[in-house]
Amino acid sequence: MATYYLASWASNLKYSDLPQDVIAAAVRSFYNWAGCAIGGSNHPATTIAYNSLKPFFGPPTASLLGHKGKLSIDAQHAALLNGIASHVHDYDDTHLDTIIHPTGPVASALLAAAEWKGGYSGKEFLVALTAGIEAECKVGLAVWPEHYDVGWHITSTTGSIGAAVAVSKLLSLSTVQTAHAIGIAATQVVGLREMFGSHTKSFHVGRAAQNGLMAAVLAQGGYTSSEQALEAKRGWSNVVGVTKEGLSQSLEKWIGVGATGSGLGLPAVGQPGRWEILRNSFKPFPCGIVIHPIIDGCVQLHHDLASQALDVKDVRSVHISVHPLVLELTGKRKPKDGLEGKFSVYHGAAIGLLYGKGTPAQYEDDVVQDARVIAIRDKVDAKADTSIAADEAKIILTMADGTVLEKHVQHALWAGKSTYPSRKHMESSIRKQLRLNADTWRAHHTC
Amino acid sequence: MATYYLASWASNLKYSDLPQDVIAAAVRSFYNWAGCAIGGSNHPATTIAYNSLKPFFGPPTASLLGHKGKLSIDAQHAALLNGIASHVHDYDDTHLDTIIHPTGPVASALLAAAEWKGGYSGKEFLVALTAGIEAECKVGLAVWPEHYDVGWHITSTTGSIGAAVAVSKLLSLSTVQTAHAIGIAATQVVGLREMFGSHTKSFHVGRAAQNGLMAAVLAQGGYTSSEQALEAKRGWSNVVGVTKEGLSQSLEKWIGVGATGSGLGLPAVGQPGRWEILRNSFKPFPCGIVIHPIIDGCVQLHHDLASQALDVKDVRSVHISVHPLVLELTGKRKPKDGLEGKFSVYHGAAIGLLYGKGTPAQYEDDVVQDARVIAIRDKVDAKADTSIAADEAKIILTMADGTVLEKHVQHALWAGKSTYPSRKHMESSIRKQLRLNADTWRAHHTC
Repeated sequence: MATYYLASWASNLKYSDLPQDVIAAAVRSFYNWAGCAIGGSNHPATTIAYNSLKPFFGPPTASLLGHKGKLSIDAQHAALLNGIASHVHDYDDTHLDTIIHPTGPVASALLAAAEWKGGYSGKEFLVALTAGIEAECKVGLAVWPEHYDVGWHITSTTGSIGAAVAVSKLLSLSTVQTAHAIGIAATQVVGLREMFGSHTKSFHVGRAAQNGLMAAVLAQGGYTSSEQALEAKRGWSNVVGVTKEGLSQSLEKWIGVGATGSGLGLPAVGQPGRWEILRNSFKPFPCGIVIHPIIDGCVQLHHDLASQALDVKDVRSVHISVHPLVLELTGKRKPKDGLEGKFSVYHGAAIGLLYGKGTPAQYEDDVVQDARVIAIRDKVDAKADTSIAADEAKIILTMADGTVLEKHVQHALWAGKSTYPSRKHMESSIRKQLRLNADTWRAHHTC
Repeated sequence: MATYYLASWASNLKYSDLPQDVIAAAVRSFYNWAGCAIGGSNHPATTIAYNSLKPFFGPPTASLLGHKGKLSIDAQHAALLNGIASHVHDYDDTHLDTIIHPTGPVASALLAAAEWKGGYSGKEFLVALTAGIEAECKVGLAVWPEHYDVGWHITSTTGSIGAAVAVSKLLSLSTVQTAHAIGIAATQVVGLREMFGSHTKSFHVGRAAQNGLMAAVLAQGGYTSSEQALEAKRGWSNVVGVTKEGLSQSLEKWIGVGATGSGLGLPAVGQPGRWEILRNSFKPFPCGIVIHPIIDGCVQLHHDLASQALDVKDVRSVHISVHPLVLELTGKRKPKDGLEGKFSVYHGAAIGLLYGKGTPAQYEDDVVQDARVIAIRDKVDAKADTSIAADEAKIILTMADGTVLEKHVQHALWAGKSTYPSRKHMESSIRKQLRLNADTWRAHHTC
């Protein structure tokens, strides 16, 4: 019933069902996505894919972001390329309970579909975006954390389902058609974690968007799949789930089939439920969130050094205590390039100390390969400590003269419900990125 | 090392490395694939996908089979649609050790790539086809049978890897580029068995072809993935494998990393090895091979009835003893349409008895819904018997007057190494299908 219930919930959802804070969260998530997609539009992962796949582009109907003026390509490739761009700096939003980056697959598919078909209102767009984000996060919660632990990139494995639900909603598919779209999306399981640190990590997000868009378009045309795709014995959750508890109960709890009473299922008028989009957050640094408290602490130490007239060159050693997951996910001692730098807690510490910030510029290849950065990186030592929380870090910095500076970051910074940047600020930031990217885009593209 | 070894083997393979029987098997496999793709070109699974995705088609460079004269579309969509068509009648070839249908994903991608790029010789095509088929079957053997048992459609999950290897070979990618192509393909895991009986089952094969083609094209452009995609802890085999024995040993045994001495690995000059393409077989009936001995036995009984002047209408009961897998895979008691009929051992028995044959015509919707067929189907009773082999069946037919006819089929018919149809016969059959389909194609397509 979970597939059908999710399809029914999505196809019946109305804009008037969305509370004000949910609408605000959807707008924020979309703006953040657009900024990330523009910011990543000139990254090699995006430009190589663009140039390689150009021979297959169909009639132009949807925008490729990050291009001055309008650059249109077919909606399928727009979904793929905007999806890649939105994830490639690891700067996109994070659903904190599952570490899904929810907006990438959903918005990349949805914007392409909306432009292709045309004539939709902002409200129709936002209700579809919200439906897709809720779908992927709820489905993700049902299989978290074992699904991620075993090696699946949960953003893309759930993302194709979220994108299918969003596009199905936009195209006003029936409940049965939406269920078939979920099935066609669910059977395309994209994303192995082994790809982290390569271009293919961001490909996952673009391909998930494309899979979801294609699933909805096929289902609209009458293509059949299964109406039990999520819960069947040889369906999505059992095959990719690997959960310890029974999966049917887990799906029921999160998708809210019947009156489960947990209050955690899909929210609807007169029903208990929880909006996952309210638990979405925005990153201060363009890398996995487990490194954030370390960068934050090192940025603070950068300013402490300056205020005491100490030079970062005179640092002798940096000892960091971190949650064990930090080393498992980001333990690259000698990152070779920007992408690998995102998986190096040592690099995160070094740029915080040296530059006092961690923006996409500090993850460019030349910075990761810079001798000054490497010199500090090699002085950083990180130890797993089970008494440290996942969003916590303790840093002990020792200078050549024996001076010791300490920093204890109790919680990672995050821009969520209460502390997100204002919409005005984000609009201005997106416009700034748009101008910045127009020239670099032209320089990188052969079109 | 398995990924790199496979890539190195494929990129170094030469036509002169192929024994004569391997070349013959590759030609047969390709002809059989073409016949299946033509035969399935007017099926709704193909035509719905064609009509739904038409707005995205790029410049025409590759053939859509089954169309009189030349109908070209972009190579990505040609790979998808020919792949769907080739699998939709469940009539395609079978690698007997893994029940992979190997040629569908590989040839669908390869023909599209070859037409798009142009200028390749038949020898270049055949060596690429062989490389792809060996790759997918070896990788499949490494995870068989647990991977299939848990719910993965092994034809498409391995098919994208086979297609990537084949297209990489055709495009003369380096070993490193081929390894990256394998990675980009491996991270797109398409195919849940829950979709069996719906259009999405054949979509798996088309999408695997498309995934492999895209993977090779991206890798050629410099897109990076992992060079340990198959064997890494969070790579393909560990995440989707679920094998009981150690996966690294299993990959080593089948892909033949180093001198494992098993004699089962990738074959090459001066190396032990086994060509999987020699274990490929061709189906006498368009459905899963587990039903084949039952259909065969019932076809024989149809002729026995005729020779004794008995009427099939007077059959009282049909008792069949089968391997337990038959009921697990094909136990649909009341199939609703042609696709579901393929998963009904009862339907297979009924058409054998009634028509004395099992061709695609006996799996049309109207036949599955025919009252005469249903009347016989309802008299069929199948029991699992662990003493019966998977390609064996015992049938006891009792007439209304008490007459009993028995049939024991010890081995399913299969057209493999020794008993395949001649090339001349297949060419004539493909031409016949081509004429047949030209009209039906026009009737079904809005183009």
